[in-house]
Amino acid sequence: MKIIQANKIKNRAALFARPVMDTTKLDTIVQQIMQQVQQQGDKALLQLAEKLDGCKLKSLFVTKDEIVEAVKNTDDQLKKAIQTAKKNIELFHRAQLNTTAEIITTMPGIKCWRKSVAIEKVGLYIPGGTAPLFSTVLMLAIPARIAGCKEIVMCTPADKNGKVHPAMLYAASITGVTTIIKAGGAQAIAAMAYGTKLVPQVYKILGPGNQYVNHAKLLVQSKGTAIDMPAGPSEVLVLADDKANAGFIAADLLSQAEHGPDSQVMLFTTSQKLAENVLAEVNKQLAQLPRRQMAAKSLKNSSIVIAESSKQMVAWANEYAAEHLIIHCADSQKIADKIVNAGSVFLGGFTPESVGDYASGTNHTLPTYGYAKAYSGVSVDSFIKKITFQELDTAGLKNIGNTVITMAEAEGLHAHANAISLRLKLLNK
Amino acid sequence: MKIIQANKIKNRAALFARPVMDTTKLDTIVQQIMQQVQQQGDKALLQLAEKLDGCKLKSLFVTKDEIVEAVKNTDDQLKKAIQTAKKNIELFHRAQLNTTAEIITTMPGIKCWRKSVAIEKVGLYIPGGTAPLFSTVLMLAIPARIAGCKEIVMCTPADKNGKVHPAMLYAASITGVTTIIKAGGAQAIAAMAYGTKLVPQVYKILGPGNQYVNHAKLLVQSKGTAIDMPAGPSEVLVLADDKANAGFIAADLLSQAEHGPDSQVMLFTTSQKLAENVLAEVNKQLAQLPRRQMAAKSLKNSSIVIAESSKQMVAWANEYAAEHLIIHCADSQKIADKIVNAGSVFLGGFTPESVGDYASGTNHTLPTYGYAKAYSGVSVDSFIKKITFQELDTAGLKNIGNTVITMAEAEGLHAHANAISLRLKLLNK
Repeated sequence: MKIIQANKIKNRAALFARPVMDTTKLDTIVQQIMQQVQQQGDKALLQLAEKLDGCKLKSLFVTKDEIVEAVKNTDDQLKKAIQTAKKNIELFHRAQLNTTAEIITTMPGIKCWRKSVAIEKVGLYIPGGTAPLFSTVLMLAIPARIAGCKEIVMCTPADKNGKVHPAMLYAASITGVTTIIKAGGAQAIAAMAYGTKLVPQVYKILGPGNQYVNHAKLLVQSKGTAIDMPAGPSEVLVLADDKANAGFIAADLLSQAEHGPDSQVMLFTTSQKLAENVLAEVNKQLAQLPRRQMAAKSLKNSSIVIAESSKQMVAWANEYAAEHLIIHCADSQKIADKIVNAGSVFLGGFTPESVGDYASGTNHTLPTYGYAKAYSGVSVDSFIKKITFQELDTAGLKNIGNTVITMAEAEGLHAHANAISLRLKLLNK
Repeated sequence: MKIIQANKIKNRAALFARPVMDTTKLDTIVQQIMQQVQQQGDKALLQLAEKLDGCKLKSLFVTKDEIVEAVKNTDDQLKKAIQTAKKNIELFHRAQLNTTAEIITTMPGIKCWRKSVAIEKVGLYIPGGTAPLFSTVLMLAIPARIAGCKEIVMCTPADKNGKVHPAMLYAASITGVTTIIKAGGAQAIAAMAYGTKLVPQVYKILGPGNQYVNHAKLLVQSKGTAIDMPAGPSEVLVLADDKANAGFIAADLLSQAEHGPDSQVMLFTTSQKLAENVLAEVNKQLAQLPRRQMAAKSLKNSSIVIAESSKQMVAWANEYAAEHLIIHCADSQKIADKIVNAGSVFLGGFTPESVGDYASGTNHTLPTYGYAKAYSGVSVDSFIKKITFQELDTAGLKNIGNTVITMAEAEGLHAHANAISLRLKLLNK
């Protein structure tokens, strides 16, 4: 991690660029896996679990007995923490549900409205690997349940013993997941997109994953299965002034850096002194971390920028469009008001990213890689579609009829005009 | 168009399947076009306009003079109709804008909220071809403007004389489009996704198009530019009982059929007699239509299904997930309440699809091809992203601190835990 002066930056786009993702090599592998699942269904899932995850599964399903056992095997303190997080996430997400359909009378006799309806079948992908991401189970299943999804399918790879981490099953069991399947990687995405004998086909797939998972999600998306958003490595940007606490900032940067070697952590600050203090703190704290090798690699993709003004700092933050944006300044709220591109924003010195990652209530499935310029994080909205309705009475049709006929004829669509004139003729008889 | 008895249907999925879209042959062509634009920018756009649209353009930009001329050349009656449609579309869409950020206190000292922010730069694609779709300009530009998008770029191909239809320019000029570019096809999508010297790069691209345009949209989407939704041919499904007006239904089916040879129009009804009357009316009305050849082709993809019950009719409607759903029954409202998969729904005998296509207020950019199971039509939401915010005071951090530490440690993410414990240590000093 190095310190750069804003006025010395020649190519800001290059500095702000995220680590490159090369999917060309992935494509053949992922397409092959997905084809295998499409052709052989559950058999392919069992074979790939053995080949890729190293586990011989008796069944793809997580049984009720396994869940009972998992609940028993989850530490009480952890259960309590998960329940607290669940309560907060529910509180924040429930407020997002808006099912009241306001009827708009656009003209006398013309009523239009929208109805929010849950997507009936959704698939949640929870990665396996080094960390058992039960927090992600909460972040996806809770809004799905609040939205009212009927079928909530969760796929996650089993470990070498064919088991799923108890805390993951505990989290799934208390959030209303309806089916839990032991399947990981691109094969899990294929199973949920196409359906197999055991795995229900879903209409939308959400959740983080490695590059194979993300590529598989993009492929099924191009064939019509909706996904939450495209994904890249995780990232954080901290904005800080000279009053900020360097130790806090270093800890926040490192908590992002430990996610993986291609994470990116950035600090924009108006204070040279703070920059130097943070750098010293990063090096000090890094030495204490179990995942320090991972974090050290990610620090190589990362920079501290000394901005010429607070205004520049904010403008560049909007240009960077961070997944996580921490504003650690005396006037955090004022700066927050000017933020237009970010996934989730954390204000002040006592709001570390970790609280939002786990338990404050906001969602942690967020747009990475600059995608925050067009995408939102996961919310109840992600599990809902809105259907428009309209109803005209005879007065309404008389009021709008000629407008529609004029427009349809000007577009050369005479059958469109005819659908109106036929009715008007009957009404004017 | 043929009549089928529900109990004679052996393969419902096949009957409900939309005309197949084969993109394999498109891919090479579209990739080539897009690469050309990426490498040569505006020069490529000018070359491709000549090669593919048959027009030698002096400039890609639509100038202010051209707009003034277009306004002059648009018929007054059409202008009035467009203004009426604009007013209704604005009324309906303005009600969708919700910028109030409700602050949720999930625990004492923990405040979380969401802020709706417009996507800064959006691109609207308006097809050229046989019909000058000024209505689509209204349907995309009005919600973009209401959302507050700063840069609204519109691309549409010029005709052989290098001109854009005056009504299109009139519609663009009254709805706040900021830049109008004469470019069509995959090259227009590439230009807006990558940016050229003249065409601003945008973060999201919306709008209908032919198969080249749709394929180009899917390609840029997989690289991170957001799009409205995947698209297939247009379609309508009519539900009707024995009291329905066969002439009205035939007119509605034909108004969809005239869109193109691969459109699909369906009628589900509980009445054999109505089915026969509609079929006779379709044949009668078809003969009168200027676009009857197009419509006749699309009728070949289309069916009338005699349902065994109203319940079955509704269940199958949800399975079909129509872009446009017309409910022409005595109990239309009751049936509408049970609809969970559709783009836009039209209730009763005096609400033909045409009114929503043009002027009632609802949007006509809708999910086709069964995508209504997961996607919504275009609305103000399509131009907005939601950023989450949170702010903890020291009490809030004390309240949630141990929960986060327990969860982070159980996931093996110690730097995440450290970001909390470091702060708690300072607070407990």
